Amino acid sequence: MGKTIAEKIFDAHRVNMPFPDTHVLKLDRVFCHEITTPIAITDLMARGMDRVFDPTKIKAVIDHVTPAKDSKTAEQGKILRDWAKRHNIKDFFDVGRNGVCHAIFPEKGFVRPGYTIIMGDSHTCTHGAFGAFAAGVGTTDLEVGILKGVCSFHHPETIKIELNGKLKPGVYAKDVILFIIKELTVNGATNKVIEFTGPVVDKMSMESRMTLCNMAIEAGGTSGICYPDMTTVEYLWDFIKDEFESKEEALEEYSKWVSDEDASYEKVHTYDISELEPMVTFGYKPDQVKPVKEMEGTKIDQVYIGSCTNGRIEDLRIAASVLKDKKISDDVRGIVSPATPEIYSIALKEGIIEIFQDAGFCVTNPTCGACLGMSNGVLAEGEACASTTNRNFNGRMGKGGMVHLMSPATAAKAAIEGEIKNSELYKG
Amino acid sequence: MGKTIAEKIFDAHRVNMPFPDTHVLKLDRVFCHEITTPIAITDLMARGMDRVFDPTKIKAVIDHVTPAKDSKTAEQGKILRDWAKRHNIKDFFDVGRNGVCHAIFPEKGFVRPGYTIIMGDSHTCTHGAFGAFAAGVGTTDLEVGILKGVCSFHHPETIKIELNGKLKPGVYAKDVILFIIKELTVNGATNKVIEFTGPVVDKMSMESRMTLCNMAIEAGGTSGICYPDMTTVEYLWDFIKDEFESKEEALEEYSKWVSDEDASYEKVHTYDISELEPMVTFGYKPDQVKPVKEMEGTKIDQVYIGSCTNGRIEDLRIAASVLKDKKISDDVRGIVSPATPEIYSIALKEGIIEIFQDAGFCVTNPTCGACLGMSNGVLAEGEACASTTNRNFNGRMGKGGMVHLMSPATAAKAAIEGEIKNSELYKG
Repeated sequence: MGKTIAEKIFDAHRVNMPFPDTHVLKLDRVFCHEITTPIAITDLMARGMDRVFDPTKIKAVIDHVTPAKDSKTAEQGKILRDWAKRHNIKDFFDVGRNGVCHAIFPEKGFVRPGYTIIMGDSHTCTHGAFGAFAAGVGTTDLEVGILKGVCSFHHPETIKIELNGKLKPGVYAKDVILFIIKELTVNGATNKVIEFTGPVVDKMSMESRMTLCNMAIEAGGTSGICYPDMTTVEYLWDFIKDEFESKEEALEEYSKWVSDEDASYEKVHTYDISELEPMVTFGYKPDQVKPVKEMEGTKIDQVYIGSCTNGRIEDLRIAASVLKDKKISDDVRGIVSPATPEIYSIALKEGIIEIFQDAGFCVTNPTCGACLGMSNGVLAEGEACASTTNRNFNGRMGKGGMVHLMSPATAAKAAIEGEIKNSELYKG
Repeated sequence: MGKTIAEKIFDAHRVNMPFPDTHVLKLDRVFCHEITTPIAITDLMARGMDRVFDPTKIKAVIDHVTPAKDSKTAEQGKILRDWAKRHNIKDFFDVGRNGVCHAIFPEKGFVRPGYTIIMGDSHTCTHGAFGAFAAGVGTTDLEVGILKGVCSFHHPETIKIELNGKLKPGVYAKDVILFIIKELTVNGATNKVIEFTGPVVDKMSMESRMTLCNMAIEAGGTSGICYPDMTTVEYLWDFIKDEFESKEEALEEYSKWVSDEDASYEKVHTYDISELEPMVTFGYKPDQVKPVKEMEGTKIDQVYIGSCTNGRIEDLRIAASVLKDKKISDDVRGIVSPATPEIYSIALKEGIIEIFQDAGFCVTNPTCGACLGMSNGVLAEGEACASTTNRNFNGRMGKGGMVHLMSPATAAKAAIEGEIKNSELYKG
């Protein structure tokens, strides 16, 4: 009987099975940010266990509220900063060098096929795009991870999604994942791994695969996961070129991290997405999804382009192509948060920052900010936001606000129109 | 007996003197931002007096916390936004088009010599740089101003500061005003107007004059004021060219707004500032000022370049000239907030944003943010900030933080060194 990629990663990392169906895995990475890790640090200190298992395997960033918006967030940053210094955690990204965790960690080459990764953040599943098993965890698991470099998981039952056909112009990974969540429902993949496969995924950039995997959690999934391929190798090449003779050799090595053909799945869903249209959410749950054309005319007060879902350079390029030489509606506040300083710098050099600026967007520093209503774009009561983020929960971007999730192209178009509409990039 | 510029402005705007020494003045401008004006709006609404005296004379901006950091600030913005819409206040600058009030209002041509201006903001004195009488007021005065277009003031007793000599390279308006506040002390000009005159002021750009006038309040002054001259006309020309045949004609018209030679002053201070060095504050009061060289070696955790004092293009150019091809210290968080979208755009085109970015600075959107500890760079307990802002009060940028006020050149140098030091621009 064959195995899934997640099962293979489990096999390679298992150190113990203390109880039936409890797999204790060795961790390759523990990622940290300033909202959840300081709770773990403070607790470990209180227990007299202020230690870390391996400072080279821990990566930390201040990203949720940056620069600090008040004394509380300043203190959270300070706890993380002091901890990183105290334990010689070299890869700590402070204000000015920091960006959204799930964008900056892959960008810095910290993720590899076959890795096990945890973080106290629900969208940790993003890193599955590289063929890694990456899961968001709570404080207790995070503390054990920091201290011992292990984490326990149930057997990774897997739902396989096979995406056939070809995306129409103007339809993106975001539209695909919104469609999939609609199909699976918000708890359709609870405690399961979602494997994204098929020719559509094969053709996707790493950025798009990250968008797919990022929202696995919105269907309840522990992790999203894609098979590593030459696109993965190309993305990682600068970081791995000393480890391999050639890209082909790297590809061969990484190719062990794919599911066997006779692997056992909880479910397999096969979709032809050739006719898929741009999608958008309409309620307070990420599975409340409709084609954009059915939501046309919905008024928008704010447009937010950014986050770990869609704040990467590919996303900014798409949005900028819609916004070029246009002005956004007087009735809309446009906010763009490039996800990392590197993305910001590339956007600067490519004239993308200028396009956003000239269109009337507010360009913030890299931060998670508005996505979770913590800073840089919180909604007032009764306001609606067209957003490239991942969650439309009631109050997510501000009490009494409504969030419509969509692709960067659709969001940019909403900024211009002041209402939801398909962009010209979509050839329907 | 001659008159001061402030007395002349009072004479031209007086509508009433209900009590001795109570001058009720007609207002040319009521400026508004989202922190203090919503209190006035809400109160006027509760009293059934939701009216404005003249929507063309009211200018409003969201600048203190932008984009909104929480539901409260989102609501404040919404109150101001809805009010502007309701009363047809066309000059309302919302997220994406907004910047620091005392930078964006002059930039948009809203300030003229001889004007009377109030705002619910203590640094309203900035606009005196144009030969206007501009004062920060409380909620009651703001409400009356919005409703009736008048405000009452005591007789404008004036302290004249005459600045002779020539500034050394690397010494700026910020150093001059810190020196003056040291001389006057923090209550030395309480309820008085500070007139800045002399060849040093004559040679200053409008940006530098705004830096001077901005901090008049830090010596207790109701307003700072400079005489309008050809520099003023040049700055305003795009906005006034339809009103005058030539710049000379404009200059002639504006020249009535200067003090008479035999005007009566409360005090006259004459300084030769040829030997003035870069200055910096060392305590919790803006008059606790020392030469930078006496503070050398003081450790810095954060550097903030921005605000209504020093967030203009002149300031960013100076800071960028220090930072070019350099990296800031690993132990410092550098934050720069260009004061307006136009300043941001110019900085973008001139490569200044890139210099900041490459040096390791966090480039935020235009906002007051960190200056008053409301967002985008609040300090944690025990941290020190080298800042180009205007107030070093205990807790100003965060509870338990220390703020050292200084010029953009000195702040940029502090970012590189991680401690206070004179920049190479200073030829001492």
